[in-house]
Amino acid sequence: MTTVYFDYAATTPVDPRVLEEMLPYMSDDYGNASSIHHMGRKPSVVAETWRGKIASLLEAKPAEIIFTSGGTESNNAAIFGALAASEGKHIISAKTEHNAVLHPVEYAQKMGYEVSWLPLDSDGRVTPDALKQCLRKDTALVSLMHVNNETGTVQPIEELTTICKDQGVAFHCDTVQSVGKIPVSVKTLGVDFLSMSAHKIYGPKGSGALYVRSGAPWKPWMHGGSHERGRRGGTLNVPGICGLGKALELAVQEMQQNTRHLRELKDYFIQQLQEIIPDNYTFNGHPDTCIPHILSVTLKDHNGQPMDGEMLLLNLDMEGICCSNGAACTSGTILPSHVMMALGYNEDMARSTLRFSMGTSNTTEQVNHVIHTLKKIIDRHSEASS
Amino acid sequence: MTTVYFDYAATTPVDPRVLEEMLPYMSDDYGNASSIHHMGRKPSVVAETWRGKIASLLEAKPAEIIFTSGGTESNNAAIFGALAASEGKHIISAKTEHNAVLHPVEYAQKMGYEVSWLPLDSDGRVTPDALKQCLRKDTALVSLMHVNNETGTVQPIEELTTICKDQGVAFHCDTVQSVGKIPVSVKTLGVDFLSMSAHKIYGPKGSGALYVRSGAPWKPWMHGGSHERGRRGGTLNVPGICGLGKALELAVQEMQQNTRHLRELKDYFIQQLQEIIPDNYTFNGHPDTCIPHILSVTLKDHNGQPMDGEMLLLNLDMEGICCSNGAACTSGTILPSHVMMALGYNEDMARSTLRFSMGTSNTTEQVNHVIHTLKKIIDRHSEASS
Repeated sequence: MTTVYFDYAATTPVDPRVLEEMLPYMSDDYGNASSIHHMGRKPSVVAETWRGKIASLLEAKPAEIIFTSGGTESNNAAIFGALAASEGKHIISAKTEHNAVLHPVEYAQKMGYEVSWLPLDSDGRVTPDALKQCLRKDTALVSLMHVNNETGTVQPIEELTTICKDQGVAFHCDTVQSVGKIPVSVKTLGVDFLSMSAHKIYGPKGSGALYVRSGAPWKPWMHGGSHERGRRGGTLNVPGICGLGKALELAVQEMQQNTRHLRELKDYFIQQLQEIIPDNYTFNGHPDTCIPHILSVTLKDHNGQPMDGEMLLLNLDMEGICCSNGAACTSGTILPSHVMMALGYNEDMARSTLRFSMGTSNTTEQVNHVIHTLKKIIDRHSEASS
Repeated sequence: MTTVYFDYAATTPVDPRVLEEMLPYMSDDYGNASSIHHMGRKPSVVAETWRGKIASLLEAKPAEIIFTSGGTESNNAAIFGALAASEGKHIISAKTEHNAVLHPVEYAQKMGYEVSWLPLDSDGRVTPDALKQCLRKDTALVSLMHVNNETGTVQPIEELTTICKDQGVAFHCDTVQSVGKIPVSVKTLGVDFLSMSAHKIYGPKGSGALYVRSGAPWKPWMHGGSHERGRRGGTLNVPGICGLGKALELAVQEMQQNTRHLRELKDYFIQQLQEIIPDNYTFNGHPDTCIPHILSVTLKDHNGQPMDGEMLLLNLDMEGICCSNGAACTSGTILPSHVMMALGYNEDMARSTLRFSMGTSNTTEQVNHVIHTLKKIIDRHSEASS
């Protein structure tokens, strides 16, 4: 069985060019970047070189980049670090955030912080007015993602940060699904904190970065040695840093051609859905403000009944097709997606939503295979349940 | 110039057998271990297999092992997680701890916790009586390392945990320098929390684990997805997990032969110091309770004056020799080691202390090279300053 992978928003393979950048620092130039001898200097220089390149790709300063173990750590460090540095006891976020933001915010809530959950428009976007109405004098932090991982909806971050800047409120943005896919500049976005991860952009797992704007009130979250100018303890994961840097560099260099490919593929996907199963799908997310690599569809059978997502995933998997329903799998049970629920879907509709997330290697033939398999499953299911 | 690496306590190269275990999960079986399709299942199975093996090597249960980004994260998660789960506001630790324990404890102190710093005997060990005297009804946690990273001194953890168990006080042990070097069993040690890191035992950087005893009061520290049974958010770093597992497996399998080699090498090192520069060194740490791979010596010139550690390190480095003074280097200035200061050394003595930490590939010829180079530096320096 050939694998047809449409789950690039979950994770990506390490690009061979990225791996090549990492390998010399595994068993050869393996020194600890904090050591002052020559075995430490080379890894230190290479880590600082990548820090500079990453900063430059994000239009940040090198000292504003802190290497972390990934998006989740970056989000935790941004949120708890900003809260620790503020007198305010109020947080603003949205229920459509990834659990890596949602759960730290909810934990803060348990610790006594008040949280305002922003209302969303039908496409899952926050309007400037909604944000204005939630802001308070004691707001310590606004945390909103750039691109939603399930629907692909792009938030109008620039408009939102402008409002926060006026009020002197710190803004954290999780860009795990946007960085390397669409232009991400800390200057343009106007954020104070920004999280990113390597393994969503053909880099290694266990590597990410946190941007902390110079001057932004923030306290370190992971305490230890004086690494990262005292802002994040722990021996520098130099291979991971090289991997993150190279992955981001390639993603930015090749963004135009990748975007063209992904956009064509998504257009083709939607066109084929329309042609083959026009009555069985609803497209989620706004077509104009949706990132090209994520396609979210809600599926129903020929009787108009929502399809069971778990059954769909398992049947697609049996044909080699990997996609996702966007929600994490806990002890064998698929929970309905909290994102779709926050967007007003009922449980059945949320459960019948699939995410196809595309990557550089996907082809129109693979799309055909997916859609014909979907049709087969829907036909079979409709017949059995009619 | 040939590199003579005597800084294995700082970090180690990735063993080729370890790298071989990691590579398939980089670009081939790259799936997200939380995905329910076939691309997720294989990494998930391999991660759980290594969890089981690691647990078994530590005499723990698989569910008691949480994968982390390394020793520092494990220490932070153990300390802050234990504190969050306790009513107590008192912590017991020692000033000789690694900064990855010292700084979280000091941060807790700033947050309002009271800290008792244990007195140490001349070898840097905690006596059961000293611990008994520090324990209070509101003690939330005792955190003590198994093996000191600068002196190699082994703490009598079993004796100390017995006391804590009697009083119902949780015990965290940082085993970053002991695991894989000497037998480490959570049962024998009797700890509630145990931290470990891969890159000190020929595994990859950015990978570690935290043991949390089943039933021990503890709350998750890194919040996010439902990974690790909801106890640590973040996509599983499957290559890192394979690397940690294989590294630990090899370290335990080859412990006997490695220990023999390291002990012989350390004996030879001390014997040669005694033969070549008998009046210029003092050995630190108790000879019987010191781990074989760490050798700490304080050096003085022929005039009896302490040698400057930074000068020694740089001069050794010019001859290809990599070792450490145990303290982190901050913006070009070497701070006197907080460990040596805690052991009662003055600043000059602390600065003149070097750590030679040995690994599997070190040889007696390399030891000869180190000692002859040391002699040359001491002779030259003594002449210049006399």
